[in-house]
Amino acid sequence: MKQILVKKNILGTNNEIAKKNRELLKEKGIFTINMLGSPGAGKTSVLEKIIKSLKKELNMCVIEGDLYTTKDADRIESHGIQVLQVNTGGGCHLDALMIEEALSNINIEDTDFLIIENVGNLVCPASYDLSEDMKVTVLSITEGNDKPLKYPSMFQRSEVLIVNKIDLLEYTNFSMDDLYEDIKSLNENIKIFEVSCTTEEGIKDLAEYFKEKIKEKGGVVNA
Amino acid sequence: MKQILVKKNILGTNNEIAKKNRELLKEKGIFTINMLGSPGAGKTSVLEKIIKSLKKELNMCVIEGDLYTTKDADRIESHGIQVLQVNTGGGCHLDALMIEEALSNINIEDTDFLIIENVGNLVCPASYDLSEDMKVTVLSITEGNDKPLKYPSMFQRSEVLIVNKIDLLEYTNFSMDDLYEDIKSLNENIKIFEVSCTTEEGIKDLAEYFKEKIKEKGGVVNA
Repeated sequence: MKQILVKKNILGTNNEIAKKNRELLKEKGIFTINMLGSPGAGKTSVLEKIIKSLKKELNMCVIEGDLYTTKDADRIESHGIQVLQVNTGGGCHLDALMIEEALSNINIEDTDFLIIENVGNLVCPASYDLSEDMKVTVLSITEGNDKPLKYPSMFQRSEVLIVNKIDLLEYTNFSMDDLYEDIKSLNENIKIFEVSCTTEEGIKDLAEYFKEKIKEKGGVVNA
Repeated sequence: MKQILVKKNILGTNNEIAKKNRELLKEKGIFTINMLGSPGAGKTSVLEKIIKSLKKELNMCVIEGDLYTTKDADRIESHGIQVLQVNTGGGCHLDALMIEEALSNINIEDTDFLIIENVGNLVCPASYDLSEDMKVTVLSITEGNDKPLKYPSMFQRSEVLIVNKIDLLEYTNFSMDDLYEDIKSLNENIKIFEVSCTTEEGIKDLAEYFKEKIKEKGGVVNA
């Protein structure tokens, strides 16, 4: 597995670099998502389920953001798809320069679906455009339904919300009604998927949704 | 409830201000903890349990860090103790200047135990000394046992780790053995408490531990 170590503070204008990356991704017809959420929300687990559902039909690639370790990238690599680790060296988010460097280290000619898994953090990563087509936030039931109002930026800026660990709903005081009410008050157009990586409930619908988006972007789906 | 709105970037040297705050807290015999953890780890719930256990014996005060809302402070205020909201206006951590301002807005003469609940974030708050006697990190079972190695700074810098939501252990693939092995490799002196805010398991021991620390600092315990 390839690995990029980010040793210094990144300078330059994030949005300008993101714009350049976005042009490249558009030219190559690569549909790109930026996966966001708290540590332990289940971003990697959801990602593994999406990979299993789609890897026969699509050429997928994952950029894994993490502070120091390759733990998540190791999990992704075990599924036999292209993965690149970006270590921030303690930094709390990925930025567009890291993605620019990552894109020069992966085989983009053979990629239809690029998934960037950001550092686990419900605050800082929301502010950085990574050239994605959509921000996808994962919120787990066990975090509590009060999180959208407490950490609004990420939910306001996401096109998709994945509510994960719904198999644990009955053991918590999480209110799905309150979640929907709060999230719609922040972002009325957000698309919500309720999933469980344990029971696989909701995974198929989620994968189908991404497949449609990839087709729209011009990616090749060998269905 | 009082509320501080932090509108601008904070300048000045965090450590110098923290040192000054620490001298004041020492002079007044106030034992201070900085509670850290991911969004949804259960910091506020654990804090509510500690308050219920100790409020008759001690004069407690809570400084609640949050991006925008007073949701957690409202929960704390319902227990009838002094609470001060610090809103960071989107900022991802508290800093010593915010604590300095907070200390001038609370009745420190009547405080034996000061609890600062930081913004939910497993990365950024680890770097900021808030003048605390100890950093206390809350990690919930549902976040997974891989978090200490993935986000090491906070675990390396904490004197206490509270492993929360142990009532959900049986519904997850969390390995307590792996957690202990990893955490001890990062910080062999860390004190670990396993608790559940649902069953109240482990809460009494945790409260007793803090009570002893408060006595050592010179706080008055009316036992």
